Amino acid sequence: MVPSDIREAQPHPSSVMDRLVRRVVKLPGTPPGTVIHAGPRRIATPEIHIFHFGPDRLEKTRPGIHDPLPLIPDADDGVLWINVDGLHDVDLLERIGHHVGIHSLALEDVAHVGQRPKLEEYEDHLFLVLPMLRLTEAGHIEVEQVSLVVGDGILVSFQEASGDVFDPVRARLRNGKGKIRSRRADFLAYALLDALVDAAFHVLEGLGEQTEALEQMVIERPTPEGMQRVHELKRELLVMRRSVWPLRELTAAFQRIDPPRVQQGTQVYLRDVHDHCYQLLDTVEVLREMAKGLQELYLSSVSNRMNEVMKVLTVMASIFIPLTFVAGVYGMNFTYMPELDLPWAYPAVLTGMALVALGMLALFRLRHWI
Amino acid sequence: MVPSDIREAQPHPSSVMDRLVRRVVKLPGTPPGTVIHAGPRRIATPEIHIFHFGPDRLEKTRPGIHDPLPLIPDADDGVLWINVDGLHDVDLLERIGHHVGIHSLALEDVAHVGQRPKLEEYEDHLFLVLPMLRLTEAGHIEVEQVSLVVGDGILVSFQEASGDVFDPVRARLRNGKGKIRSRRADFLAYALLDALVDAAFHVLEGLGEQTEALEQMVIERPTPEGMQRVHELKRELLVMRRSVWPLRELTAAFQRIDPPRVQQGTQVYLRDVHDHCYQLLDTVEVLREMAKGLQELYLSSVSNRMNEVMKVLTVMASIFIPLTFVAGVYGMNFTYMPELDLPWAYPAVLTGMALVALGMLALFRLRHWI
Amino acid sequence: MVPSDIREAQPHPSSVMDRLVRRVVKLPGTPPGTVIHAGPRRIATPEIHIFHFGPDRLEKTRPGIHDPLPLIPDADDGVLWINVDGLHDVDLLERIGHHVGIHSLALEDVAHVGQRPKLEEYEDHLFLVLPMLRLTEAGHIEVEQVSLVVGDGILVSFQEASGDVFDPVRARLRNGKGKIRSRRADFLAYALLDALVDAAFHVLEGLGEQTEALEQMVIERPTPEGMQRVHELKRELLVMRRSVWPLRELTAAFQRIDPPRVQQGTQVYLRDVHDHCYQLLDTVEVLREMAKGLQELYLSSVSNRMNEVMKVLTVMASIFIPLTFVAGVYGMNFTYMPELDLPWAYPAVLTGMALVALGMLALFRLRHWI
Amino acid sequence: MVPSDIREAQPHPSSVMDRLVRRVVKLPGTPPGTVIHAGPRRIATPEIHIFHFGPDRLEKTRPGIHDPLPLIPDADDGVLWINVDGLHDVDLLERIGHHVGIHSLALEDVAHVGQRPKLEEYEDHLFLVLPMLRLTEAGHIEVEQVSLVVGDGILVSFQEASGDVFDPVRARLRNGKGKIRSRRADFLAYALLDALVDAAFHVLEGLGEQTEALEQMVIERPTPEGMQRVHELKRELLVMRRSVWPLRELTAAFQRIDPPRVQQGTQVYLRDVHDHCYQLLDTVEVLREMAKGLQELYLSSVSNRMNEVMKVLTVMASIFIPLTFVAGVYGMNFTYMPELDLPWAYPAVLTGMALVALGMLALFRLRHWI
Amino acid sequence: MVPSDIREAQPHPSSVMDRLVRRVVKLPGTPPGTVIHAGPRRIATPEIHIFHFGPDRLEKTRPGIHDPLPLIPDADDGVLWINVDGLHDVDLLERIGHHVGIHSLALEDVAHVGQRPKLEEYEDHLFLVLPMLRLTEAGHIEVEQVSLVVGDGILVSFQEASGDVFDPVRARLRNGKGKIRSRRADFLAYALLDALVDAAFHVLEGLGEQTEALEQMVIERPTPEGMQRVHELKRELLVMRRSVWPLRELTAAFQRIDPPRVQQGTQVYLRDVHDHCYQLLDTVEVLREMAKGLQELYLSSVSNRMNEVMKVLTVMASIFIPLTFVAGVYGMNFTYMPELDLPWAYPAVLTGMALVALGMLALFRLRHWI
Repeated sequence: MVPSDIREAQPHPSSVMDRLVRRVVKLPGTPPGTVIHAGPRRIATPEIHIFHFGPDRLEKTRPGIHDPLPLIPDADDGVLWINVDGLHDVDLLERIGHHVGIHSLALEDVAHVGQRPKLEEYEDHLFLVLPMLRLTEAGHIEVEQVSLVVGDGILVSFQEASGDVFDPVRARLRNGKGKIRSRRADFLAYALLDALVDAAFHVLEGLGEQTEALEQMVIERPTPEGMQRVHELKRELLVMRRSVWPLRELTAAFQRIDPPRVQQGTQVYLRDVHDHCYQLLDTVEVLREMAKGLQELYLSSVSNRMNEVMKVLTVMASIFIPLTFVAGVYGMNFTYMPELDLPWAYPAVLTGMALVALGMLALFRLRHWI
Repeated sequence: MVPSDIREAQPHPSSVMDRLVRRVVKLPGTPPGTVIHAGPRRIATPEIHIFHFGPDRLEKTRPGIHDPLPLIPDADDGVLWINVDGLHDVDLLERIGHHVGIHSLALEDVAHVGQRPKLEEYEDHLFLVLPMLRLTEAGHIEVEQVSLVVGDGILVSFQEASGDVFDPVRARLRNGKGKIRSRRADFLAYALLDALVDAAFHVLEGLGEQTEALEQMVIERPTPEGMQRVHELKRELLVMRRSVWPLRELTAAFQRIDPPRVQQGTQVYLRDVHDHCYQLLDTVEVLREMAKGLQELYLSSVSNRMNEVMKVLTVMASIFIPLTFVAGVYGMNFTYMPELDLPWAYPAVLTGMALVALGMLALFRLRHWI
Repeated sequence: MVPSDIREAQPHPSSVMDRLVRRVVKLPGTPPGTVIHAGPRRIATPEIHIFHFGPDRLEKTRPGIHDPLPLIPDADDGVLWINVDGLHDVDLLERIGHHVGIHSLALEDVAHVGQRPKLEEYEDHLFLVLPMLRLTEAGHIEVEQVSLVVGDGILVSFQEASGDVFDPVRARLRNGKGKIRSRRADFLAYALLDALVDAAFHVLEGLGEQTEALEQMVIERPTPEGMQRVHELKRELLVMRRSVWPLRELTAAFQRIDPPRVQQGTQVYLRDVHDHCYQLLDTVEVLREMAKGLQELYLSSVSNRMNEVMKVLTVMASIFIPLTFVAGVYGMNFTYMPELDLPWAYPAVLTGMALVALGMLALFRLRHWI
Repeated sequence: MVPSDIREAQPHPSSVMDRLVRRVVKLPGTPPGTVIHAGPRRIATPEIHIFHFGPDRLEKTRPGIHDPLPLIPDADDGVLWINVDGLHDVDLLERIGHHVGIHSLALEDVAHVGQRPKLEEYEDHLFLVLPMLRLTEAGHIEVEQVSLVVGDGILVSFQEASGDVFDPVRARLRNGKGKIRSRRADFLAYALLDALVDAAFHVLEGLGEQTEALEQMVIERPTPEGMQRVHELKRELLVMRRSVWPLRELTAAFQRIDPPRVQQGTQVYLRDVHDHCYQLLDTVEVLREMAKGLQELYLSSVSNRMNEVMKVLTVMASIFIPLTFVAGVYGMNFTYMPELDLPWAYPAVLTGMALVALGMLALFRLRHWI
Repeated sequence: MVPSDIREAQPHPSSVMDRLVRRVVKLPGTPPGTVIHAGPRRIATPEIHIFHFGPDRLEKTRPGIHDPLPLIPDADDGVLWINVDGLHDVDLLERIGHHVGIHSLALEDVAHVGQRPKLEEYEDHLFLVLPMLRLTEAGHIEVEQVSLVVGDGILVSFQEASGDVFDPVRARLRNGKGKIRSRRADFLAYALLDALVDAAFHVLEGLGEQTEALEQMVIERPTPEGMQRVHELKRELLVMRRSVWPLRELTAAFQRIDPPRVQQGTQVYLRDVHDHCYQLLDTVEVLREMAKGLQELYLSSVSNRMNEVMKVLTVMASIFIPLTFVAGVYGMNFTYMPELDLPWAYPAVLTGMALVALGMLALFRLRHWI
């Protein structure tokens, strides 16, 4: 669909399209609810980590992908957290889905990464699609999809690859610090959501540092490369905004869900993470405005420098072109040019030339050109 | 109404006006509810395809345009899907309308293509006007109108021409995969809507690829042609946004319709397609921002190159114009020019010229001009 | 209030101020409800056309402006449509107002043209102020005010001048086509509103054609005149948007009015015209974005051409200025210039010059300047 | 707080800050409800005008500032309008406030001019802060604060100085025209609000005329001064918008106040003034867009003229620089330059030069540069 | 995460990132509700000031940081205001939190400065996070966090450092002026909030003065430094807007809280401060628009001056280059140049040159270039 003359250009290493669109397009002919892995395969073999915890216990197991899954605990028997890294083993996903009772549409979205962040209430469980943001070495944002299925006493989390974003939550589970072990699955969901928002803040911090460094650069030595960097920064901020924007609504909806699905004391924590989403978006907007401001500063600085260049040219030309003309006149070979023979003519002409030059200089000085 | 001096310009091959406005203007003097075909004739003869399906059966028929239409089945007798390709046979439309009981205003909108996408509840049926998007070889968006009439056990779809967008749905009907055959007409309507949104994603993917290719182009070798391409891309994105924007509201309204018109289990699927519409629009906005960013990048790059050109001119002129003046001075024909006769004058002047030139070069080097 | 040095500039033939502001300012000291004609006099003598119609009859009369007005018919006795062209005869307006029972504030707005489109519910009648748009030969929008008073069995319409916008409605009344004769005054009001929206679409079509013609022009040969045209187009689109914008809300409010004022079956027609208003506004926005895009395209094309011009200058100057300097050196009149006497000096210098010129050309070629 | 190097710049005669911010800042350490006059003193001595009117009577008194105030009339005894010009006599304000029973916070706002327009319901009265707009000779907007206290049978209005904006209302009171004398204080408040909105329309008319005059100027002879004027116009439109914007909400809230505070028949008049506020804002937005368009037109016209200048320079330089070089070559003093002695050499060189010049001209013609 | 080549640039002294993002990022692995001081340490030792006041009494104490805290008074026993300056002593915060009964999440936000302004209702108390704005000497905004815990008869305020923003409130408490001593803790909270909004107005006043000084500067002598100043001003306005924006919603929510938490008479005061927040934001927007206008004015002025420079160059070059060419022609050394020997040739050529120059001047005059 791209005209052939521009198609040959090489795809950009950090293609926005890959990150935004391509992965969402369904395979033609598949009915809704079909579980098909759509993204890149980011891990060789899926890994399963299971935590079973209660106020005063914590069991960690790591079953193989074909091992049977533990039973979902009763209300008083703590919370089961099943974390799955790697989404390409469709059989595994379907087995887990069947075991936990995940709606087929939800399971389709788990596998079909690139979904818009959302919170959906199914009869048996809540389903959350969340973005996990990471800043690469090159300063680009990578968005992975994390899906949470929050049932009664069970939480299943699906990641595209193993990552360390949830490590703080795991640490708190191990230490038994805070309230996390004495609460239900909804609080665990909050903790994971909070960890993802914190990760987004780290990405934002990186983009903010880029913005400030670019600001220095544009002010001190504006180059076309800096301009291109600003362009890339704006693109990353667009990706960031698009990923974080739905979280605002999502966290608001999460807060409004009635007990027992979201328990009494959890709302206040969700309000906290909701505020952080607002703060994220506010700051993304500030950075976008600053990046726009950098472009304007750059353009005005380019205009200024062109002005400087033009002034030098104009001053040089305006002084020497008339003088050269005068010299040319007295270089003409007419037989009858009486002033050529005057002994004081040469010094007089030189003096005149100097006066013209000085006059020009004074005039330009007056105009503040030099 | 266009002043004559600009009217002679040839119409653009992918006229936005044709796609946006002209087709909507009613013929003067026709009362509302008059069925008049307004768009271009895209197919020689209208074609009718009829599917009659239930959980465990599927009958396909293809009656001629004058053949009698099958009866609308009872609630337990499956669903009848009548697909009509080609809208210029007004008699046919009116016959179908009469047979199914379509409101005259709805039938008018079916024939009068170019309507804004909308969902209307009539007493006997739902009426949907939907856009079918396609990207031409030249990278332009073509918008066709698809109208759906969703009754009780019957769905009539009207297309401007035969197309393959609904093929996946037909395949699922044939295979009996998924739930499509065991559900009512509302689910079939969802499936068709979903297929149209998927088609829009494919168009978006094409536009995204164009955007990225243009980004490469603008960064590597900015040309006026690239700029014009960006302009055209922006125009296509405007068309895209205008076509997709009403779908957001439409799908939200579709979700809110109460049973039995939209059945219990269908809502969750409509929520899914509603999310996809949001994602479409988010991404269109991102692409629009990127296209805008490309224009700014282009302008700054043109400014930069002009700066480069000006610097070369200024450096050349600033070095050689003063030297030429000096040469001109010693080319004057005054009788009394004592230094002309000094034997070391010529090499001294040449040396002085070289020093001036080197000084100038050093100065420009200092200013980072060369 | 305008400083004197800019006041002498002649008023623009299509003054936006006349169309937007001036006519609305009240005469000082007049209490609200005073009927004063404020706009220009667009017709010599007011004309009155009266239609009295029912499902199977239609009487047309055209009384003089001093003739008595017919009685308002009962509910079963059809609908009376009084159309008044020309608003400067305040006595006539007041006589009609008194006859029909129009609120004094409504009557003031009828005469005081330039009101914002609005729908007001009075106790006895609905009052609508609507814009009638027309595109002049010069491509400017003319906005006339049409006021409708919709009572029970009576509709009074006031126009600034005789126009042909309502001709299709009159034709339908005469032909008895459609439902217009079998419905009440609310349906007639809808039909007139629909005719005005259709007229707006024709204006939009004209502006769209202008936009496309200008797009061709800017791409093929960008001139300052084209730029001014784009500016004027943007101004007309502003006028258009401002006139149409309130219609969106107006038609929505019209739909929500309860029976019997707006009867059951009319709502679906009003929903239709409401959709058309949305479509108008969508398209106005698209055209505005396109006009903005044209300006950007124009500016980038001007920058490009300046770049081209600068390159030619720089190439010419960079090649010939050094060569001229060399020629100047050998034109100096020093007594002691040994190379002047060498027989191969002249051809050598010429060759050297040619080499320098070729080197320069190669360099510029390398930089893609030529 | 302003760095010293930019502080020395003289304050602008029509300081936006004075009009927008400075006057609002409270004196430190004053509790809320303290009546302190904050604005400039615009009148030497405060003046009090009292109207006591009913359906068939009107008494005008003009007491001194220390005279006792008349009693507030009963419901059937007409309406008392106390108009105070000049706000710097705090004692007077407090005496009136005490007499009428004005809340201390309201009285503080009366004296502390520069408040945002607002409508506040206190237990005993409505309190309105309204802007009185005026266009100075220099084309700047002056915003004065008018405060209204609307009680039961009493209206107190406070102005910063005597003005003629309320004269039409006074005239209507004197003439007994319209309904103003037969209504209560709420209708008088409406009449004053309407007069202020009319004044704003006159200001808008002035700004509109400036806009049109500037449009002419930019099209005919774009100068930097015109650009500065456009900048100033935009600033005034900002001030205008900021002053008028809250009126939209204020009039909507006024309409919603229940009887008896706002009586039955007054709502329809308030709806009218509400519509006018919308129209004001619409038009301010249109003017702002036009002013923005003027800047763009100006910039494109500057670019165009620079293009023209560059073309002249390039054409002149491209033609004469090569010719001068040729002349320079034959001005060299080599001993061995055989062509110098050919008798036809001089005419031949001249002819060659002419041909080169003509070729150049043809080339430039071809490129549409001349 | 910042590519290394731009990382070496020194951090900006008034880093926006420090002010907006960095301080909010949580330490990894800490459960919610952990009190950790995150901001810079702005005071050596925390200080505690306690006011215990009632309608007719006021006790001030200043306990050491390890001294026991006074009991919370009963409803009739006045209000206790504990003001804490300095947040880095976590033990102190936790001791106060425990004493007063502050929710752990609220206490976390107290210590973890950089939160978005917010109002949260906990079971036992209201919790407000507020911004304290200050303009530094260099014209940058410093945002400190002030947290208020408003209980029944107690208000605890936390500041990052000792400041004088609350001095007016303290003065009113001491003087017993106004209603502050006879009201409850909600009114004290209002008074503190009002003091913070007043401080924001002072900052806005400073920014407004900067804006006006820059406007003068850009109009009189536009320099790149001025442009950079405008850029910085825009950045500060962004910070300002981001800090003040949530206050609008916060004050609206504060007003809506039911008694007894916010008492009957306090609402009207909160409405007042709510209006001031709107006014702050309106004015920030006006200043942002003005700053944007300054950039545009600057760019147009740079373009203009470049135009001037180009005209001078073009005029000089266009006049002297042809003349120099003519002089060059008669400087050629052809043997056969008959006109060289004519006695009137030299004066004739000089006259011709003068005529050409005058003609050129006339032409440029005609084009308004000189």
